[in-house]
Amino acid sequence: MDPRSAPPDAAGPLRVLIDGAGADVVPIWDRGLAYGDGLFETVLIRDGAPCQWSRHLARLTLGCTRLGIPAPPVGPLEDEVRDLLQGIDTGVLKVLITRGTGGRGYRPAADPQPRRALLLYPLPTWPDTWCTAGVNLRFCLTRASQNRTLAGIKHLNRLDSVLARAEWTDPEIAEGLMLREDGQVIGGTMTNLFLWTGTALLTPVLDLAGIAGTVRALTLEIASRQGLDCRERDLPPRALREAPGLFVTNSLIGVWPVRRLDGRDYDLGRLPWSLLKAVAAAARTTEWP
Amino acid sequence: MDPRSAPPDAAGPLRVLIDGAGADVVPIWDRGLAYGDGLFETVLIRDGAPCQWSRHLARLTLGCTRLGIPAPPVGPLEDEVRDLLQGIDTGVLKVLITRGTGGRGYRPAADPQPRRALLLYPLPTWPDTWCTAGVNLRFCLTRASQNRTLAGIKHLNRLDSVLARAEWTDPEIAEGLMLREDGQVIGGTMTNLFLWTGTALLTPVLDLAGIAGTVRALTLEIASRQGLDCRERDLPPRALREAPGLFVTNSLIGVWPVRRLDGRDYDLGRLPWSLLKAVAAAARTTEWP
Repeated sequence: MDPRSAPPDAAGPLRVLIDGAGADVVPIWDRGLAYGDGLFETVLIRDGAPCQWSRHLARLTLGCTRLGIPAPPVGPLEDEVRDLLQGIDTGVLKVLITRGTGGRGYRPAADPQPRRALLLYPLPTWPDTWCTAGVNLRFCLTRASQNRTLAGIKHLNRLDSVLARAEWTDPEIAEGLMLREDGQVIGGTMTNLFLWTGTALLTPVLDLAGIAGTVRALTLEIASRQGLDCRERDLPPRALREAPGLFVTNSLIGVWPVRRLDGRDYDLGRLPWSLLKAVAAAARTTEWP
Repeated sequence: MDPRSAPPDAAGPLRVLIDGAGADVVPIWDRGLAYGDGLFETVLIRDGAPCQWSRHLARLTLGCTRLGIPAPPVGPLEDEVRDLLQGIDTGVLKVLITRGTGGRGYRPAADPQPRRALLLYPLPTWPDTWCTAGVNLRFCLTRASQNRTLAGIKHLNRLDSVLARAEWTDPEIAEGLMLREDGQVIGGTMTNLFLWTGTALLTPVLDLAGIAGTVRALTLEIASRQGLDCRERDLPPRALREAPGLFVTNSLIGVWPVRRLDGRDYDLGRLPWSLLKAVAAAARTTEWP
């Protein structure tokens, strides 16, 4: 297993392993390409190891179950991750699972042979101040796709986030929030959203749309341990504008407090900083069997 | 341009052209695979030529506009189709457009270099009697994904149809109908649905979910020319059970009248057969510049 390094395409990853081999291409008729028939995980790599690995693995497994794709065998997958990370300190690991090759037509094979790819990318470069001085958010016009069976998992049908992210180019805007068709806020194009009421922590219910992030789960756990009142709730945009504080999370950024949303400024001093700091630290904690 | 023939993978197409070359693989980081960031068309080939080509091209172009992907240049695309179809009589042409390669993250490149693939498959083998004696349908539990921006076009985010089609294996059941989250019928996993009231032709509104098929448009046009009352409408399952007749359409099957749905039998004699026959004939008409 020698990961394919430095592909000729500048937009590509630094290293790739496909089904344990150093390849970087797939058949054009892979079902991941044909129908978005698969799943992915985006894992922060620090000190040469994945952060929050067991949470990523759990969500990937849940997604495989939901889609009826055999989950990748954990031992070989972890061996491949170790191979891919040889000599690497920091980066982003993308784990990609597709239902594999299949004939034309939506019907999945009774006995699918999933394809498993590991891609290593450099860490994105966001301003350091965004974690401390906060970020500027906007509302997107593109709505979050709604489907009860697909909600929560990190499947490959992500055109809603792509189109929402295409709505702005201003580098000062860190993230855009997306609504469901019924007007409830789901979260950001690449983040989960939290609202601090001053006494309780609220986050959108994701039973119809959105992705239930690993750091979202971590945040709810830590908040609960800190004795905070935590609730999943439908949140209209008005609730955000009226809230004392907001923050967004994902596995790569950890936590970004929200300084501004759609012209409204927030006082970052009102956020529960002991929670934010604990979540940011936990999100950066390597965890590797 | 020599199309790649007979790939080693049995599930694959007979011939493939990617960006005009005889390749059959794409980089694992193509955005079509990463996010379902692209579109496709499924075109019936008869007498060595595409049927209803201009309608497929029009929908593909609409889809490209909707997703912000530069549409493929028509001249070169048609030249490639001619090359792919050399010596071929019948088959299925799949035209696949992706936003091409791109870095990690949802944000599309400002200057995307789309990837264009043509795949030729053998014609599927459905029983001939399904066109005349009708088909047996079921209702699926998996709901149709709902997104106003993505509704109607044939994009690559098709997990809802994949999961719905995975719900049954009984070969006697030809198609499954899908509902929106609010319970309105959208159509089949791979077909559009029409309801005949005895005096009017109804078909589901597709402004929130579903694909607006080329033969759906053809059916509405021909029905209108025949002086029939045609309307797009929200249709609850009850309306289907109470209707005198139903039929489904797509570019490969043409028209299938519905003999049975979820245990209810329909009298095929009550369908407007002059319409069904005209649509079936038009769907099989080659049209090539």
